[in-house]
Amino acid sequence: MGSRPFADYAQLLVGDLHASLASPVSESMNFLNEIALRYPGAVSLAAGRPYEGFFDLDDLPRYLSLYQQHLTERLSGDEERVRRTVLQYGRTKGVIHELVAEHLRLDEGINANPQDLVVTVGCQEALYLTLRALRRDERDVLLAVAPSYVGVHGAAGLVDMTLVPVRDAADGIDLNDLVMRIHEVRAQGRNPRACYVIPDFANPSGTRMSLETRRRLLRIAAEEDLLLLEDNPYGLFGDPDGPPTLKALDTAARVVYLGSFAKTGLPGARVGYVLADQRVVEAGSTAADGSAGTLADQLAKIKSMLTVNTSPIAQAVIGGKLLAHGCSLRRANVREIATYRDNLTRMLAGLERRLGNVPGVSWNAPEGGFFLLLTVPFPAGDDLLELCASTYEVLWTPVHHFYADTRPRNVVRLSFSHLRPEEIETGLDRLARFVRDQQQN
Amino acid sequence: MGSRPFADYAQLLVGDLHASLASPVSESMNFLNEIALRYPGAVSLAAGRPYEGFFDLDDLPRYLSLYQQHLTERLSGDEERVRRTVLQYGRTKGVIHELVAEHLRLDEGINANPQDLVVTVGCQEALYLTLRALRRDERDVLLAVAPSYVGVHGAAGLVDMTLVPVRDAADGIDLNDLVMRIHEVRAQGRNPRACYVIPDFANPSGTRMSLETRRRLLRIAAEEDLLLLEDNPYGLFGDPDGPPTLKALDTAARVVYLGSFAKTGLPGARVGYVLADQRVVEAGSTAADGSAGTLADQLAKIKSMLTVNTSPIAQAVIGGKLLAHGCSLRRANVREIATYRDNLTRMLAGLERRLGNVPGVSWNAPEGGFFLLLTVPFPAGDDLLELCASTYEVLWTPVHHFYADTRPRNVVRLSFSHLRPEEIETGLDRLARFVRDQQQN
Repeated sequence: MGSRPFADYAQLLVGDLHASLASPVSESMNFLNEIALRYPGAVSLAAGRPYEGFFDLDDLPRYLSLYQQHLTERLSGDEERVRRTVLQYGRTKGVIHELVAEHLRLDEGINANPQDLVVTVGCQEALYLTLRALRRDERDVLLAVAPSYVGVHGAAGLVDMTLVPVRDAADGIDLNDLVMRIHEVRAQGRNPRACYVIPDFANPSGTRMSLETRRRLLRIAAEEDLLLLEDNPYGLFGDPDGPPTLKALDTAARVVYLGSFAKTGLPGARVGYVLADQRVVEAGSTAADGSAGTLADQLAKIKSMLTVNTSPIAQAVIGGKLLAHGCSLRRANVREIATYRDNLTRMLAGLERRLGNVPGVSWNAPEGGFFLLLTVPFPAGDDLLELCASTYEVLWTPVHHFYADTRPRNVVRLSFSHLRPEEIETGLDRLARFVRDQQQN
Repeated sequence: MGSRPFADYAQLLVGDLHASLASPVSESMNFLNEIALRYPGAVSLAAGRPYEGFFDLDDLPRYLSLYQQHLTERLSGDEERVRRTVLQYGRTKGVIHELVAEHLRLDEGINANPQDLVVTVGCQEALYLTLRALRRDERDVLLAVAPSYVGVHGAAGLVDMTLVPVRDAADGIDLNDLVMRIHEVRAQGRNPRACYVIPDFANPSGTRMSLETRRRLLRIAAEEDLLLLEDNPYGLFGDPDGPPTLKALDTAARVVYLGSFAKTGLPGARVGYVLADQRVVEAGSTAADGSAGTLADQLAKIKSMLTVNTSPIAQAVIGGKLLAHGCSLRRANVREIATYRDNLTRMLAGLERRLGNVPGVSWNAPEGGFFLLLTVPFPAGDDLLELCASTYEVLWTPVHHFYADTRPRNVVRLSFSHLRPEEIETGLDRLARFVRDQQQN
């Protein structure tokens, strides 16, 4: 704006900005978004987006109108309050908390008090709020299985919270390593505040924890006085008779449950939530007196200074979708669940057919979710991804992004959630060609 | 969940949580929300909400459909991409950036490159992103006029950024004091990164800066190598021939412009934005090489770890409203502008009529916006507010909340934005009775 010489302009140095901006995580997101834009013709086995085939813009007015009807009934026909609830500034903790609690009861067997819920701008804000509350000073650390969802590294970076990696295992987490890390962290004078886990079809590994592991994890949390942050975006896309969530098994408020509607509701609504029923008390007071309410109340205070409240219009869209299906998202996602299952089956069969006999190549076989891990006989980092995108026109995610570093490893994440059958076949054809060519080099 | 005795439950101490949770600001929001809930019969001269009289739920499908039509044209009828843009995960910086840039050109004379905009979850997220980027370590401080909007204290608290108060003046800011503070901060080995201002009808003071003050402020920013964070939620509700925004006058990228659609669009959409055209470079590099893009790019990286993106559904609602009025929000708000002007006139006349001859009572006379400051002959803190709410049934905001402390002062903020004429009269009747009774004590 203007034509003065450049030197007069305000100019900022990267090094003068917050450290999270120079971290590998921050560069990760940029690089991965940007490579997808540069190769629009490439099949993406990288994007963890939900399937778009059933998207319908006519759902929006329908959901809004369902929620409006529901509110009109609840507010005994007071149209002014209905309008105010959807269009005005609103309750910091959200307005669809009772519908969300009902969904949790129906679909997850979680018995939540609606007052312990904070409706957030996607699950990512829920994660940020929780880490912001728990990170008091530099001694507070977060434990997380390595590799872990990029967003947990990112949120921890924003509050300058150190993330201590816990070893992965076929069952989702190495519990012995978890206990060792807790003790090690304490021996250093630091506080392990919580352990972040995705028990159901983890990102990136696709692993689902067994019931036994869940029980042992809860026991360790109680013994070590640790919180568990349970992130569950994919749980509904699996066998309904699978193990219950940690929160459903939690009898002592050890679990902060992070919920997402991005995959089960609509990503474009950007609505998630956190269930945080932990008591918060003033030092020296007992449960009976001086209680500062629950962790949810504290998270709401942070939210009031971060995003004020989650758009009630966006909440109304998700509320309407819940109402359209009697608050069961499993019911709402019958077609999607079938699609993800078919895609997973097709991926596993397709990999077997194309790479089953290639030395050094293997993969795990998740029972649901959006992802699996493919092991290849060469370190697969960003440079190889760039080559693969330009020459083979297929994208995948180097696993180092989930370790928040830049060291290429022999593992890549493959995603299959948003693809049509023919795209999976084409993508795997190209991927197999790439892997064979690389292996011969 | 469960019936084990309380002692087994996870329990957190307030003192173990982030310090911002124990700050007066955090308690402020809680107290002010809570007192409004406890006295629903009280007239609120406290809430800074926009006027609800023109709210219409039928606008939502209309705006959504207008935006959808616009997208369909822009994407040459590619319905799949239209659906994806509104319903899927989307561009971190937002999807209505071009419409926002056009609004800025039409209504504010700001010539913005749409790529320098980040569409945010309300202006509060824009403020958080900016402070998060600028706060690298404990030496980085923010300057702000005292008293200042509660949300700036809150956002600074979330990133542990010290806020250094600058003296207020009839013209909005004491520029001599600003320069003194900058030098004082530097002498302490700290970095004044930016100064936060609301040049148009400030919250809480209602003050509008003169053109001369704006020019001098920009000059100081250039001389002292300081950024200005210009927050402008109320500017449109004033004389269109008033002074231009700082950003419109900015020829050297000194101003980060924080925009809100909560008052001019719809609060329930929770959509705001930040215009951050500052160049960001690696140390040792010049403008020509090694540029890391603009500050907007850096803010987008933070956003990707905080809220991922602003709900494109909510953006579509605001986009539709912009399209419905040729991108002019001044045009869209003709009725609201008249309402706020009438309310202001009524407030000033009503105060004069009721309190014009009371010793020790005075008020300022803003030319627009939502607020004015009333001086009373007694310290008006939270205790008196409580008494006033219960006995006189009228609410106002003790000004100490805008200083982020708990010391009662002889000033209160009165808001008139959301009230109907008869509510203003009733509210002022009650307030005048309260002030006279207090004054006699």
